[in-house]
Amino acid sequence: MLMATFQTSLKLPPFKRGFHLITHLIERAVPEIRNYSAGMAYIFIQHTSAGLTINENADPTVRMDFESHFNKMVPENAPYYKHDYEGSDDMPAHIKASLLGNNVTIPITNGRFNLGTWQGVYMCEHRNYASGRNLIITLMG
Amino acid sequence: MLMATFQTSLKLPPFKRGFHLITHLIERAVPEIRNYSAGMAYIFIQHTSAGLTINENADPTVRMDFESHFNKMVPENAPYYKHDYEGSDDMPAHIKASLLGNNVTIPITNGRFNLGTWQGVYMCEHRNYASGRNLIITLMG
Amino acid sequence: MLMATFQTSLKLPPFKRGFHLITHLIERAVPEIRNYSAGMAYIFIQHTSAGLTINENADPTVRMDFESHFNKMVPENAPYYKHDYEGSDDMPAHIKASLLGNNVTIPITNGRFNLGTWQGVYMCEHRNYASGRNLIITLMG
Repeated sequence: MLMATFQTSLKLPPFKRGFHLITHLIERAVPEIRNYSAGMAYIFIQHTSAGLTINENADPTVRMDFESHFNKMVPENAPYYKHDYEGSDDMPAHIKASLLGNNVTIPITNGRFNLGTWQGVYMCEHRNYASGRNLIITLMG
Repeated sequence: MLMATFQTSLKLPPFKRGFHLITHLIERAVPEIRNYSAGMAYIFIQHTSAGLTINENADPTVRMDFESHFNKMVPENAPYYKHDYEGSDDMPAHIKASLLGNNVTIPITNGRFNLGTWQGVYMCEHRNYASGRNLIITLMG
Repeated sequence: MLMATFQTSLKLPPFKRGFHLITHLIERAVPEIRNYSAGMAYIFIQHTSAGLTINENADPTVRMDFESHFNKMVPENAPYYKHDYEGSDDMPAHIKASLLGNNVTIPITNGRFNLGTWQGVYMCEHRNYASGRNLIITLMG
């Protein structure tokens, strides 16, 4: 069977600082996935102070604990930060973005994202006041 | 040359908590890789408390030190965890899974995984008592 | 339109320990990208003590703060390290490599890397004295 590439962009609404489930928004953005019997989906965020990851999709306290732990592991106002003129949340946001990653890569099987039962896509917003973030979604298979 | 997608799943045996080399298990699962002169291999774990990464494939003390360091960087029983009803190893397991990532992406060259001399694929099991984890392996090229 | 795979390797010059922008080196290595209207670019580093990530491409203090923070989060000479015979910078280098990841995956749109305005590719060198690192770059679409 011939392979094909499909690509689109998705402008997310603004999210408050924290971890947010966006699996449903991504699924809605690419109905074309049904044409792929097997392949890969790539979701890429075009920003350096927000990230994407895959984690537990059921209990909201998991997302709260992510926020608490990342704030501890990558604190604001660390004495060694030199990049501080965009606010105390800025440099930690850059570091968190690289720790979590700016993309997720999901297998496509029989026209659907082949996620595990408990897996969902998190939008990780690390800034206090961010506007809507832009994603590039690519399907190949 | 026409491109093609190959996809399969691989059920791993249960591993104890820690970091484990699984390169040989993945290679064994996809003999079809020999048909790909150039392309990419995607290995995706369908779980949120275990992960995949690529690191040193020779000295077992490297894998031990990974376990020690991640236990320190993401401790059990942190006072700010709210998600604690699945055991003290559960919430740290979710955070470690997102820090390390739930997939590895490896170039294919001349029908083989084009890893560096010292690179191997680690299965990162973060739960104390987990059953076998499921991988989706996709080859494209 | 038929899909195609292009793959090449890129030997980087030696970098000193720290975080370095290499977007321009990668762009220069794959002029073939202009043939891809939509697709994905995969950049993979064949080493276990250096990594790749995407982050802010403008202010050099961001890259300095990355180095400071990772040195704090993954210290040298931690009492629990067993793998210490390659120098005090070696085991932290392995852990940092897996935290940041050994590859970046970038969408291709209209013959170009579709990065956000502020995004650049970082080469993350974690060893004190490393020779040039090798990248495998694959384009598909």
